[in-house]
This record gives sequence, structure tokens and C-alpha cells, in this order.
Amino acid sequence: MDAKVNGERLWAAIMETAAIGRTPNGGITRLTLTDLDRQVRDWLHAACEAAECRVIVDDMGNMFARREGRRHEAAPIAIGSHLDTQPRGGKFDGVLGVLAALEVVRTLNDNRTETDHPIEVVNWTNEEGARFAPAMLASGVFAGVFSKAYAYARTDADGRRLEDELERIGYRGEEPCGEHKIAGYLELHIEQGPVLEAAGRDIGVVTGVQGMRWFDLDLEGFAGHAGTTPMALRRDAMVGAARVIEAVREIALEAGDQAVGTTGVIRAEPESRNVVAGGAHLTIDLRHPDAEVLERMEVRLRERIDSIARDLGLEQDLKQIWESAPMAFDPRCVDSVRRAAEANGFTFREMTSGAGHDAVYASRVAPTGMIFVPCEKGVSHNEAENITPENAVAGAQTLLDAALLLDDVLD
Amino acid sequence: MDAKVNGERLWAAIMETAAIGRTPNGGITRLTLTDLDRQVRDWLHAACEAAECRVIVDDMGNMFARREGRRHEAAPIAIGSHLDTQPRGGKFDGVLGVLAALEVVRTLNDNRTETDHPIEVVNWTNEEGARFAPAMLASGVFAGVFSKAYAYARTDADGRRLEDELERIGYRGEEPCGEHKIAGYLELHIEQGPVLEAAGRDIGVVTGVQGMRWFDLDLEGFAGHAGTTPMALRRDAMVGAARVIEAVREIALEAGDQAVGTTGVIRAEPESRNVVAGGAHLTIDLRHPDAEVLERMEVRLRERIDSIARDLGLEQDLKQIWESAPMAFDPRCVDSVRRAAEANGFTFREMTSGAGHDAVYASRVAPTGMIFVPCEKGVSHNEAENITPENAVAGAQTLLDAALLLDDVLD
Repeated sequence: MDAKVNGERLWAAIMETAAIGRTPNGGITRLTLTDLDRQVRDWLHAACEAAECRVIVDDMGNMFARREGRRHEAAPIAIGSHLDTQPRGGKFDGVLGVLAALEVVRTLNDNRTETDHPIEVVNWTNEEGARFAPAMLASGVFAGVFSKAYAYARTDADGRRLEDELERIGYRGEEPCGEHKIAGYLELHIEQGPVLEAAGRDIGVVTGVQGMRWFDLDLEGFAGHAGTTPMALRRDAMVGAARVIEAVREIALEAGDQAVGTTGVIRAEPESRNVVAGGAHLTIDLRHPDAEVLERMEVRLRERIDSIARDLGLEQDLKQIWESAPMAFDPRCVDSVRRAAEANGFTFREMTSGAGHDAVYASRVAPTGMIFVPCEKGVSHNEAENITPENAVAGAQTLLDAALLLDDVLD
Repeated sequence: MDAKVNGERLWAAIMETAAIGRTPNGGITRLTLTDLDRQVRDWLHAACEAAECRVIVDDMGNMFARREGRRHEAAPIAIGSHLDTQPRGGKFDGVLGVLAALEVVRTLNDNRTETDHPIEVVNWTNEEGARFAPAMLASGVFAGVFSKAYAYARTDADGRRLEDELERIGYRGEEPCGEHKIAGYLELHIEQGPVLEAAGRDIGVVTGVQGMRWFDLDLEGFAGHAGTTPMALRRDAMVGAARVIEAVREIALEAGDQAVGTTGVIRAEPESRNVVAGGAHLTIDLRHPDAEVLERMEVRLRERIDSIARDLGLEQDLKQIWESAPMAFDPRCVDSVRRAAEANGFTFREMTSGAGHDAVYASRVAPTGMIFVPCEKGVSHNEAENITPENAVAGAQTLLDAALLLDDVLD
């Protein structure tokens, strides 16, 4: 564990690839399977071959760049993330994980370090889901969550099929997606939240991913003239919506530090400034790492909405539209990340991921762990997304050392 | 005061004109200055001439059908409302006031009742403002609030000018709008609110029109990932909006029975279910018949928004975008309406109008009063708008007797 990553080389790689799809405000627009995505893939392909890796592309376009280990027959330890971005996204979301993985390989080469397992740099196709929904599509196919037929048939806003776009940019590989065996997977990612920055920690040791439940709520009252309908005779869906928004917040606060609850979208009907709203439609997003707590939050949500609707004479219809169960990462992987951070003297804290990542799907087929580094003000999916070179180095060094620790631990 | 209106004739007139622009769901779409508006104007013109009235049209298309009085030199007592409707509007909004005025003239004829003042049936152009904004345009020109040049230059969604449309349908008269003198004005209208129905009263004696203030509020917080931004670190504009909506309601409730406060429109930014809202935009509508109370409501609103924004770490910007001062109708007119209702044994209550009407502008140039009748569930601007024949008769009878009382009272 004496090999040190080259921070300048890592930062230069990040800035070099950031030119591919750079936006005027310093972000990146590099949607999956566009010509810009092909350019950055070609860049990675060349860089990995220059680092003496053999690049394998599967038929979902996932890229695996293999540095051989002592045990040729062993499945590799995969490290990586994704190179696609949101429209007007940042320079680090996904990119840091892939380029830090490349830096790990380069550092191993510099130090002529041999590993038992092969080490593979991974670039997953379409993590963002911004061009082709849903997100994490190709890691989902890799893990058997989505069928390849489903994935191929996804279309973008212009009706172009994912399969055709894969073919067009030349990244529909031969290997059937999912047949590529991996012994373990580690992903370095920016936190995309403000916790590490606020806590002043270098590294987040990610223990798992929060459970999430998404709801749509319709409230129905009675539309009325804003001037002629006395307050006492109103059935105002907007007031109902306001109370639900506050209730969602209170439910999360009551459920402890790890709970979050959000209303991000609201629409009133008929949307007229001098009409009492006859209807309101809102979204609710509840998350918690513990399935039981999350269930209690939903029960409480239903109680609160019932009571709010009753008080205001509204009809209500709450529908759960999506659910993702909480997930714990493999203890060996989590432990390797913790030990790697400790060994380097980095400050760290254990935390769960509030966002989804390719690691969530990877964890279905292999021992998986994640490393977070702070990002400025927690801003992500935004051109203003930012980290320091020190954040990048701490993340890459932790990734390197965790991979080496895992190399000893895993079969 | 022995003349009784003919309820069947009145109802038949309402139903006959309701065929002009009838919608499949039993409402009317009869936008101002369309061919349908011309048809109903022609119908009224013919009906008034048949009732021995002389029809005068001013150069804003306002129609005055005059039944002479004993004092030919006296300015007339005008009674009426408007025949234009909202898109998919109801059969009674405006129409009731004009056709009840026609019924008053017919009843006076039947009874050979002579009045001192001439009595004029009025049909104001473009009360609704649905095709050409703003509403109450031609009564506004009549009262000197808007210039004729401004009114003529109003365009509809297809870019057609009001002046050209007046010309096209043949209702640009000779008399300059505003030169027509009136001694007083009475307007019968459906309440467009639920107060009379809820109180079980036949007649609303309208004492004035509420003051109204309209505001736009921008709240600015900080957008964040719904999964990764802990509750304690959020600056959630949606939660701020929710508290303001509740505050608007509380401010109205605190200000007493006659106060109303409404948020009818809300938009969050970026409008994503898994993003904590970084911005929220909402409208606020405050109304009260007393200017001082309305001012206190605004002061309270500013205090509450300040404190809500401070608690949540939000920036706030509250802009008043429109104001209409409270207005009291002429005591002689209000008294005539009250006495007319009493004399007929109708139950009644005094109330202020929450909505604007042509009577608001008319009151700037002549003693003015209004009569409300209940409408089903307070629904208006809707094809479901409904009243009973008994409501119509009570309104028309009150209009007749109030006009006769005013005939004695006014110069």
C-alpha cells in the first residue's frame, strides 16, 4: 500500500476529457451514445490500451479495460463509473470514478505492482438516463434487472433507438452483456450532497443505498371564485397541498437524521390567480436506509394525508409509483474502503447513498462498495458542480488501496 | 309597486338567447364582438324596439334601449349588465341582468306604468375580457377609466383589433362613449359565489365591492438532490411556498368574515420529483371591503413572508402587481334595493361583491347599486352555472321595484 496516485495526471485527465462536450459555463453536455460520447469513449479506449490494458466492450456498450493479474483465471476486480453526463451537467459526476480507475491502473503500472486478480476499469453505458430512460440502464442489464431487448428498444426524444445509436457510434461489442464475470466492484463518486463538506470529512465510506418510495398525490376540492367564495365555504386543494408539503417534511424530521422527504413538483388546477384551486397534484419522495423505518414513514404519510383531506373536505388519492428497497454493500468492500481511508490518514464517515448508482445494480452480481468524496455545496447535475484536486486525489488513493485490500480478501 | 314581472316570459327570454352560442353541455360560448354576439345584440335590439324603446348604440358598442319617462329632459335610470360570455360560460352571468331589465320594461309597458325618468336597458360591450383583455372594458371607457384609443387597439389572440370587430359586426354606433348621461344605474347579477345559497337568502343587497390586491411572490432557496441533501441542510423553496399558502389563509381568517385570501397559482423550480425545489413562484390575492383592513392584511402578509423566509434561509421578493380600492355603492341605490326586497317579502342580506362588474365603473359617473341572486353552489364561468326560475323572478322583481323607488329619489 505504498503506491501513491499521481494527482496531477488524474486532474489533467479530468480536464482533458472535460473539453469533450464542454459548455460555456464550464460544465459538460455529453449525453450517452452521442458523437461526444463516442469521442470520450475513444479517448478512454486509447488511454487504457496505452496503459497496457485489453479493452472489452459488451453488447450494451459497457467498457471493461483489463490489467492482468497473477491469477489469470480469476474474475477481475472492477473499478469505475460512467462517462455520460446530464445536459449541462458537471465535470465530475461519473467521470471522476472512471478516470480515477484509470489512474489506479497507471499507478499500478508505474509501481510495477502485481495483483492477484485482474483489475478492470469500467465505463457503464447510460448511467444518467437523460437521453434514454431509465437511468443505470446498462448496469441494470448487466445485473439481469432489465432485459437487453427492453434496453435496445429505449428511444430518445427524437425517436432514435438505443440499439441503433450503439451501433452507429461503434460501441455495440461482441460479448453478451452480463456474461462478463467480476469478482468485485468498487465505485468512486462525488457525493452529490452536502454531508461530507458540512462535516469536514475527506471520504465517505458508503455502507449502502437508501430505500426510496415515490408517490403521486391528487387532491380534489372545489374550484371557486377567489373574491366571492368565503374562506369558511372553501374546499381549497392548494391549502391541502401546502399541508401535505409540510407533513412530508415533518415525517422526515421525525424519522431521524437519515430520513429525507421531498415534494419537488406541484400543480394546481385551474391555475388562475383569482380562482380557488379545485385540484392539486404533487409528488412525494421518501427515503431511508432502513426498510422498516421507510415503511413507518409511508404509514404516517397516509395517516397525515387522510387527516388533512378530512379537515379541508378534499378527496385524496395517493399512489405509490416506484419503490427501491434499501441495499447494504458487501461488508468486505465497505471494510476495505474504511481501512484504505484510515491507512492514508483521511478523515471519513460512514454514510448511505441517497442517489442511485451503477454500484446498486453491480451489487446484485458481485461484492460491491462505494467511495464518496465531497463536492462543493453538494451541487451536482449542474454546470457549477465542483471538487478540489485534493478531493480527487483522496478519492483515487482510497480507490487504489481499497482495491488492493480487496485483492487479498476476495476469492 | 304593484306591477309584477312575468317570470315565464323572463325565463323564456333567457332560454331563447341561450341558444345563441349554446354548448353541448348546456352553457354558452358567446365571446364579445363575434357573430354570435351580433346575433344576440340583434335579438335584444328587436326585442327592445318591440317594447317601444329607442335603441342608442355608442361607439364602444354599448347599447342603451330607452323607454321614455314623463321628464324627457331627465337623464335615464339605466338597468342592465352584459350579454357576452366566457368560453364555455354559463347561461346567467350577465345575461340575467340584461334580460331582467328587458322584462322590467315589458312589465312597465304591460301595466302602462309611467316613470319620471326614462328607463334604459343597457348591454355593456366586453364585460368578460375573455376575448379582449381587460375585462369591463367598455364600461371603463364609459367611466373615463380607459381611453377609447386604448380600447380600440386591444387585440384578440388572432391579432384582430377590437375597433375592427366592432365595425365588422355593425355595432360601432355614432354616440361618443361616455357622453350618454345616466341618472343612476342598477345591475342585477348572479352572485357567482356560495354565500346566498348557504345563507338561504333570496336577494343580496350589494353595498359595495371589495378592495383587491394582487401579488406575485418569488422564493429562492437552493436546489439539491432529494436523496442526498439532509433535511437540516435544505433551503427548500417548496416548504416556504407551503407556509406562505397557509399564512395567506390564516391572514384572511384573522381579518374576519369578509376577508378572503387565495393562492391560485404555484410553480416550483426545477420541477423534478427528486430535486429539492430551489425556487417557487406563487400568486396571492387578498380582498376586503375595508381599505384599512386590507392594508393591515398586506402588512401582515409581508411580516409572515419575512419570517417564513428567514426560518428557512430563503430569499423572498413580494411584488404587488395590481390593486383595486374598495368601493361603496350609492346609499340611495343600496337603500332602494333593500326596500324593494323587503316590500316583496324576499329574504335578503347585505353583502359586498367579491368580483368586479360593470357597476364598479358605472358608479364613478352615476349613483349605482347592485342586486345579487343566488346561483347553484356558487358556480360561475362554467357551463354548469345554474339558477332557478324563482331566483330569476325575485331578482327581476327587485330590480323593477328598486328602479321605481330610485325614480322617486334621484334628481
